[in-house]
Amino acid sequence: METVISSPTKTVVIGPNRPFVIIGERINPTGRKKLAAEMAAGDFRRVRDDAIAQVAAGAHVLDVNAGIPLADEPALLAEAIRVVQSVTDVPICIDSSVVAALKAGLAVVKGKPLVNSVTGEEERLESVLPMVAEHKAAVIGISNDETGISYDIHERFKVAKKIVERAERYGIPREDVIIDPLAMPAGAVHGAGKLVFDLVRMIREELGCNTVCGASNISFGLPGRPILNAAFISMVIAAGMPCAITNPLEPEIKNAILAANLLMGNDSNCMAWIAAQREAESQRAGDNAARATAAEAARAEREARRAARRAAQTQG
Amino acid sequence: METVISSPTKTVVIGPNRPFVIIGERINPTGRKKLAAEMAAGDFRRVRDDAIAQVAAGAHVLDVNAGIPLADEPALLAEAIRVVQSVTDVPICIDSSVVAALKAGLAVVKGKPLVNSVTGEEERLESVLPMVAEHKAAVIGISNDETGISYDIHERFKVAKKIVERAERYGIPREDVIIDPLAMPAGAVHGAGKLVFDLVRMIREELGCNTVCGASNISFGLPGRPILNAAFISMVIAAGMPCAITNPLEPEIKNAILAANLLMGNDSNCMAWIAAQREAESQRAGDNAARATAAEAARAEREARRAARRAAQTQG
Repeated sequence: METVISSPTKTVVIGPNRPFVIIGERINPTGRKKLAAEMAAGDFRRVRDDAIAQVAAGAHVLDVNAGIPLADEPALLAEAIRVVQSVTDVPICIDSSVVAALKAGLAVVKGKPLVNSVTGEEERLESVLPMVAEHKAAVIGISNDETGISYDIHERFKVAKKIVERAERYGIPREDVIIDPLAMPAGAVHGAGKLVFDLVRMIREELGCNTVCGASNISFGLPGRPILNAAFISMVIAAGMPCAITNPLEPEIKNAILAANLLMGNDSNCMAWIAAQREAESQRAGDNAARATAAEAARAEREARRAARRAAQTQG
Repeated sequence: METVISSPTKTVVIGPNRPFVIIGERINPTGRKKLAAEMAAGDFRRVRDDAIAQVAAGAHVLDVNAGIPLADEPALLAEAIRVVQSVTDVPICIDSSVVAALKAGLAVVKGKPLVNSVTGEEERLESVLPMVAEHKAAVIGISNDETGISYDIHERFKVAKKIVERAERYGIPREDVIIDPLAMPAGAVHGAGKLVFDLVRMIREELGCNTVCGASNISFGLPGRPILNAAFISMVIAAGMPCAITNPLEPEIKNAILAANLLMGNDSNCMAWIAAQREAESQRAGDNAARATAAEAARAEREARRAARRAAQTQG
């Protein structure tokens, strides 16, 4: 099953037997004080730069979130989306827990976006799904509901099923619902990774749905986060997840995704892998050359000082 | 299903829902000219050092191979096993494609070893399995036969099934047969990783058997091998492989295994992960301190030279 989203000029297909789709996570003021302050003050330069940098690093879609306490989230989210779409051409993932903000985002976004998100809670289902249907958007369904986030895989699956079925009742086809099985911090919730891997497989095999997750949450609170995130993302790709909200600017994550694409047989002739390795190598060579030049300059400066001293001695 | 192997003092259990078992791959003269020349000349010091280093780095089992062209492989393999068991206390994986060498290894090894390997070829089945049964050893069954290595998952599965059933006829219980699904180089064989992941799952679900592989082969001929190997090993752990023949001295591989153990819920309270991260951190701190000391020494030397020069000037 394939989920197709788009910008006015680009189409992104999310599905099995395809390269993994990276949804850039950076445009999100949660935990980024500076960005939050700037956005609240109407300064979107960092939003613009983050958009450009993430696309340059390989993001196929950009998540845009404007969740700032006490701010006018609907207006900020709409403006952030406008800014991002003015400098990049990838599809947008409209990210908010506030229904009015999702609505404002949907009103301005160009193309077919991904709406992030609806949960299995009655009130959310009934407010978000009609909007998604009206705009013919795709939606992320998070597998929790009024009772919370269950640690039981069958409970979480049941919530996912409920979201998919309710969406269909609103005329949203199953392929336009991407389920987030919820990656909890593995340091706090024992076996949180395994639960996600199993749930991804179950949702794929039994609901036929694509899955997504916020991939950095898994390592929250643990040391060595980049290595854990890299292992998690390769493992979740092996389990069959076709996309994630993550940071393509982290080299460990980017490398793990490229390696997993290759190993899953989704990198034709290993071309993307080999190109990335060459780029990394020329980057290293450039760094070394820069270091060598700096060392050479320092040496020349020492020589010059010594010569000046000798000249002073001779004169003296 | 659990495979239990042992040395005189240590028992290693290989199976699902347990930390991944690392079978150290280094004691193998294939592609190691120096080691081959030394072993052929009866010098086993490097074998001894490699054994100690791998166990220190976390190997739970040691693979021992003495495949040197034109050498007396049975005698060399027996001696290598003796040397390894004299300095370490982990179980042994006796590795040879020569039946007489496996026999010589089985004659000297202490404990219950893993015999590496038997294939689905009639002649191998009939020569290796009786020896394995006689010594009550465990055995690695490689899923290829007279017709070669099939690219078809069902063909490979059939060979695996044949090995398991033949072993049972010889009185070797199913849990003492570990299937190697054969990781081919992903750069040459498109989707070689995916085939292994699927086969591991199929063998586990339909035969109930444990699986193993030589984990470094997958990246053969490609750039960025450590990153590919790390991604592969986490993905194959996610697919359910409980052990592999690999190199615990490569930090990327070791880290990927520890991360995967944690994410699969097989690292109680994340203790192994946190301990390894702390060790790596204190290692880095040590390196930085050493670098700082070296920089300080260089600075002191420059100062001393300058002082000497000044003194010379004053005298002159």
